[in-house]
Amino acid sequence: MGALLKFGALLLAAVAACVAWEDGDVWDYDGHKLKDSDFLALWPLPQKVQSSAVSFQLSASRFQFTHAEGSSAGSDCSILQNAFRRYFDYIFGFTKKDRDQRRRNAAGSEVLELQVAITSPDAECDGFPSLTSDESCLETFSQLVYEDAYGARNINKTGVSDFPRFAHRGVLLDSSRHYLPLKVILANLEAMAMNKYNVFHWHISDDQSFPYVSRMFPDLSQKGSYHPYTHVYTPADVKMVIEFARMRGIRVIAEFDTPGHTQSWGFGQKDLLTPCYTGSSPSGTYGPVNPILNTTYDFMAGFFKEISTVFPDAYVHLGGDEVDFSCWKSNPDIQKFMDQQGFGKDYSKLESFYIQSSTDKGYMVWQEVFDNGVKVGWTVVEVWKSSELEEELYNVTGAGYTTILSAPWYLDYISYGQDWQNYYKVEPLTFKGTDAQKKLVIGGEACLWGEYVDASNLTPRLWPRASAVAERLWSDQGVRDISDAYVRLVQHRCRMVERGIPAEPLFTGYCRHEYSGV
Amino acid sequence: MGALLKFGALLLAAVAACVAWEDGDVWDYDGHKLKDSDFLALWPLPQKVQSSAVSFQLSASRFQFTHAEGSSAGSDCSILQNAFRRYFDYIFGFTKKDRDQRRRNAAGSEVLELQVAITSPDAECDGFPSLTSDESCLETFSQLVYEDAYGARNINKTGVSDFPRFAHRGVLLDSSRHYLPLKVILANLEAMAMNKYNVFHWHISDDQSFPYVSRMFPDLSQKGSYHPYTHVYTPADVKMVIEFARMRGIRVIAEFDTPGHTQSWGFGQKDLLTPCYTGSSPSGTYGPVNPILNTTYDFMAGFFKEISTVFPDAYVHLGGDEVDFSCWKSNPDIQKFMDQQGFGKDYSKLESFYIQSSTDKGYMVWQEVFDNGVKVGWTVVEVWKSSELEEELYNVTGAGYTTILSAPWYLDYISYGQDWQNYYKVEPLTFKGTDAQKKLVIGGEACLWGEYVDASNLTPRLWPRASAVAERLWSDQGVRDISDAYVRLVQHRCRMVERGIPAEPLFTGYCRHEYSGV
Repeated sequence: MGALLKFGALLLAAVAACVAWEDGDVWDYDGHKLKDSDFLALWPLPQKVQSSAVSFQLSASRFQFTHAEGSSAGSDCSILQNAFRRYFDYIFGFTKKDRDQRRRNAAGSEVLELQVAITSPDAECDGFPSLTSDESCLETFSQLVYEDAYGARNINKTGVSDFPRFAHRGVLLDSSRHYLPLKVILANLEAMAMNKYNVFHWHISDDQSFPYVSRMFPDLSQKGSYHPYTHVYTPADVKMVIEFARMRGIRVIAEFDTPGHTQSWGFGQKDLLTPCYTGSSPSGTYGPVNPILNTTYDFMAGFFKEISTVFPDAYVHLGGDEVDFSCWKSNPDIQKFMDQQGFGKDYSKLESFYIQSSTDKGYMVWQEVFDNGVKVGWTVVEVWKSSELEEELYNVTGAGYTTILSAPWYLDYISYGQDWQNYYKVEPLTFKGTDAQKKLVIGGEACLWGEYVDASNLTPRLWPRASAVAERLWSDQGVRDISDAYVRLVQHRCRMVERGIPAEPLFTGYCRHEYSGV
Repeated sequence: MGALLKFGALLLAAVAACVAWEDGDVWDYDGHKLKDSDFLALWPLPQKVQSSAVSFQLSASRFQFTHAEGSSAGSDCSILQNAFRRYFDYIFGFTKKDRDQRRRNAAGSEVLELQVAITSPDAECDGFPSLTSDESCLETFSQLVYEDAYGARNINKTGVSDFPRFAHRGVLLDSSRHYLPLKVILANLEAMAMNKYNVFHWHISDDQSFPYVSRMFPDLSQKGSYHPYTHVYTPADVKMVIEFARMRGIRVIAEFDTPGHTQSWGFGQKDLLTPCYTGSSPSGTYGPVNPILNTTYDFMAGFFKEISTVFPDAYVHLGGDEVDFSCWKSNPDIQKFMDQQGFGKDYSKLESFYIQSSTDKGYMVWQEVFDNGVKVGWTVVEVWKSSELEEELYNVTGAGYTTILSAPWYLDYISYGQDWQNYYKVEPLTFKGTDAQKKLVIGGEACLWGEYVDASNLTPRLWPRASAVAERLWSDQGVRDISDAYVRLVQHRCRMVERGIPAEPLFTGYCRHEYSGV
């Protein structure tokens, strides 16, 4: 996506720029190097910004978003229609449309149009975002607009060349440890778009509850959710989340973590879990998914077939982390199967046996699946363990796997003070390895696991701490100045608050408009 | 306050009990000792609860709160009027009043009235709460009511004898590091009442901002607040906070911390702060309040005279903590004054000189004022330093001072996991000392300093972590079972959520009605 500004009576043209002016001049530049924070608190900081003191006004009654000549987007492009409405609202708030064109400012120092150029074969914009989608120009534009002392909207002549450093920029939310009402998920998708995140990693089920309403296996949520009416995601809910995300250029990657983390599945699907034994008799408790029964694979094939139609993204996340082998070890049938397969006492081979059989979509897995030696194609490995992190990255990329980094960004671990700085200081590519290996690290994820968060506290705990991760994943590797980031992030946080997101404060101070909830 | 229940056609009488039945039987008791958590998640746990399996229904259309015979409260008692409305709402939510008395349940297994008996000479209840006030019976009653499977309200025959272990149970909020909108303060007063807190310690000003609008010295907030329109407390705001608190039996103790923590005062009051020196010339920065000028004492006398009329409580908190002596030391005029007074190099004597001169109300101070050797009457010392805590308690009480403990309950220090348990495990009276010394510890305070909290995140960060402190200050010393507390607190937290307080979760799980905000 590119964007062009029309100001005065001039129609502008530019290429390969996010927000661009061209009027015959070269870039106007103040002559001295600006600090990053001078750029009106842009967050995340674009790759290149050339600012100037030349300012133009924007009138809520005359400003319009238009389709640039040559844009592939049709006038019905749903994503743009929606984005125009959203960003107009962010920029102008509630204002009256001026119907009297005679009051038009004749001085020419006014921006009348933002021309948005889309390069995509999909004129109606009905497709779903992918790794290569880019929806972020309008956010940058909205951040460039500021109010003067009279509240009038202004934008300075600014050249922005922008693209993300990493293609996969995700936030993980966990709707199993606590159910997250739809409203909470949608609000956080809004906040993600403000921070140019493009992946919602939806850790939808776990041991504690199974809130996803499956059409094929309704008992899973009927019996496995906290409550089958009030604590579930219906097919309509899931559709709404996906569409809301799509409008913001955000992919939804669903995670149905197996074979561990599946206690809640057991209530609604008979024989799915492994019966654990004490000595020679079943103890009455259950372990991970039972990997030796054909019924397990029939169920999983059917279930993931449904998932791959319900969730349009090219990837699904299969989990595969923290499988506790003790229950498998206790079960005599499993022991027998291990012998038959020649797995010896290596239960990671049994896990591999299980994982390899689950889906035909592209998939993501947690690092244990790699660590256990599974070899499959089209897999993205998510590295989450902080111990021996650099070695793990070296090994995973060395084996040729596409990699996502989440280990340094477990935002559920809170501590006193400005921990956003720790997230910000991370450099994902310090591990030893060839350039080819480093290119395999396509991004990272801020993970807010659900043990201690729900509707009451999730949003302020996530923002602006996740904003620090967002800039690390978006901006140039050289953007690392903590003091500068602080100045911009304080303002970006207030911007989120003004847009209705209860992002928590970084430190003492205030926003012009404080959060109006409790 | 006492409360009596009328059920069926019987009018009951009881004495010295919070919620009492008397119908000729002795207390019905299940025969085996009940666990604390069996008592319907009462929080904080009353001193004595005798429960039974005998249940009575409550009909929203017929139940009423009434004044018990002999109650000193007039029918216009504003506090009761307000409390009846609030607790009816908590118990029944929105229901239709049944105007048709013929549908009356004739079986007699129904509670028709809660008779509330007040013992106070103040019939109209126009007075302000004090250390000896008790407003908590209705909260206990509301916690005893439960819904059966059909949603019908029930209460089991239960004898409750209740009183607080400590008279002073406070929450400190800081409206200087971040401005707290009125809505946030009121919501937290609501939550305090649900936890039987009875003191709101309002740390209203500090270095960062001065939001209190003084009638005598309007420049203090005009120039010292974050913004003189949007980030101040007007006299009407302050009145509303005090009245809202009064209705809930909560005292409002205002803290205007001096002589340190006063940078924001300097903007609106010329010559109030000490000019710091570099060598022989002023550095342009300012230190604590200047204790050597008559103008300082004239100002403080006028200011605190206003404060003592605006805030009706018998106590005001004068602060006195963390005074940095380096600026005083640098100033030649102060050095000269020290010599004249014979203080030598002991700047704590200078602080004492200042503190002794400020107000004629009863007052609270932070522990440094005691540590520095000030000797004054009618003073409450608040102990906040964790190092050498037991020794400090021994010394302060040994010197005969009434003492408030806040050191173990600095709730701004967050950490991963269930830190409420640390607050809960505290036993305030383990320090060595006589019984007389221990009696001087009249309570404690949960302090949520404002560096990292504002409207966006304050409420879920405070609750239910402050609930743990509430039970420690209210319940018997022997109530210390963490597992039992967990079970009750999980339910109490959901009760707060249902009443509109975004209290955060203790751990995985769910509430029947999740918080409906973001």
